[in-house]
Amino acid sequence: MQALKERIVQDGFALGTEIVKVDSFLNHQIDVAFLQEIGREFKARFSGLQPTKILTMEASGIAVAAFTAMAFGNIPVVFAKKAAPNTMTEDVYAAEVKSFTKGTVSLARVAKKYLGPQDRILIIDDFLAHGEAGMGLISLVEQAGAELLGFGAVIEKAFQGGGRRIRQSGCRLESLAVIEKIENGTIHFL
Amino acid sequence: MQALKERIVQDGFALGTEIVKVDSFLNHQIDVAFLQEIGREFKARFSGLQPTKILTMEASGIAVAAFTAMAFGNIPVVFAKKAAPNTMTEDVYAAEVKSFTKGTVSLARVAKKYLGPQDRILIIDDFLAHGEAGMGLISLVEQAGAELLGFGAVIEKAFQGGGRRIRQSGCRLESLAVIEKIENGTIHFL
Repeated sequence: MQALKERIVQDGFALGTEIVKVDSFLNHQIDVAFLQEIGREFKARFSGLQPTKILTMEASGIAVAAFTAMAFGNIPVVFAKKAAPNTMTEDVYAAEVKSFTKGTVSLARVAKKYLGPQDRILIIDDFLAHGEAGMGLISLVEQAGAELLGFGAVIEKAFQGGGRRIRQSGCRLESLAVIEKIENGTIHFL
Repeated sequence: MQALKERIVQDGFALGTEIVKVDSFLNHQIDVAFLQEIGREFKARFSGLQPTKILTMEASGIAVAAFTAMAFGNIPVVFAKKAAPNTMTEDVYAAEVKSFTKGTVSLARVAKKYLGPQDRILIIDDFLAHGEAGMGLISLVEQAGAELLGFGAVIEKAFQGGGRRIRQSGCRLESLAVIEKIENGTIHFL
C-alpha cells in the first residue's frame, strides 16, 4: 500500500535496527481517516471472503480492526485480552504471547462464547514482528474450531520472521507494508 | 441514550452488585455499527464544541473513541498507554490509575508530543465507575496545559462515585447510560 509506505517514511522513524515508531498515526495517536483507508485496503485484499468476525489483540490492534470491520459491512470485532479482569469469569480460550518490545509474557484470552466453530475469522493486527501475537491469535482461532480465512498486518517487519511463521502455519497473509531492514536510520521496504 | 439502555438490559448482565458485563458489544466483542451510533450521540451531546483531539484509555476505550472521532470529522485519537513498551522513549505525561476490576495500579502515559497547550480535548471512555481512569485522563490533560472540553462516558455507574468526582473537578460530563444500582441481578437506571 503505497500511501502507507509514504506515511511510514514521512511520519515514522527508525529506532536502532529493530524498531519502527509509527505512534503518530497508528498505535498511540490514531489517524482516524487513514485507518479507514487501511480498513478499505484490507477489504480489497481479502475481497470475496465473507468473514463473520474480525479477531485482533488489544490494545493497538483495536482501532484498525474496528475500521476494517466497518469496511466489511460492520461485522463484529473480538479483541483478545492480555490482562484478565475479574469481570472475565467465563470459559476462555488462552494462548501465551511474548512481547519483545515490552519484555513480558502474557496470556491472551478470548471468552469462548465469542468465538466458535460457526465463525469464519479474519485476523487483523497493527504489527507483525516475531509473530508471537500473531501465532497466539491463530491458536485462539484453532482452539475455537473456527475457520481461519486470513491474516492482515498493517506493517510486517520481514527480518523478524513473523511473516514466515504465519505463512508456514498455512495461513494466508496480507501485509500492507513489508519492511526488509532498518539500516542507519533508513527504513527499507521489500 | 435509550437504545443503549435497552442494549444493556438485553445483552448485558449484572455480576453481583458492582459489575455490569457488556462485553458482548462494548469491551470484548465490539458491535461496530452500534459504536458508530454511540459516536454520533457523543457528537450531538457535545455539539458546538470543536475538539482538536479525543483522549481515551487503552484498551476498551479505543473503539468508542475512534468512532466518536469519526463523528467529529475524523479528528485524531490519542490513547493513554498503561504499560510502557521499550519503544516509548520520549518525554511523557503520566498519571497513576488504580483498576478495581483488575486489582492493579498502573501508570497511564501519553507522549508529550501528542498533547499540548494548543489542544482542546474531549475525553471519551467506555466506563465511568470509581473515576480512577477518568481522573487520570483529566490529569494528563492538565499536565499538558490543554483545554478540557468535556468527558463522555458510555456507561456511568453512579453508585461508585466516579461521576461526582469528574463533575466536582469542574469538568462537564455526559454519560449515555447512568446506572443507579444493581439489585438482585436487575440493573436500575437513573
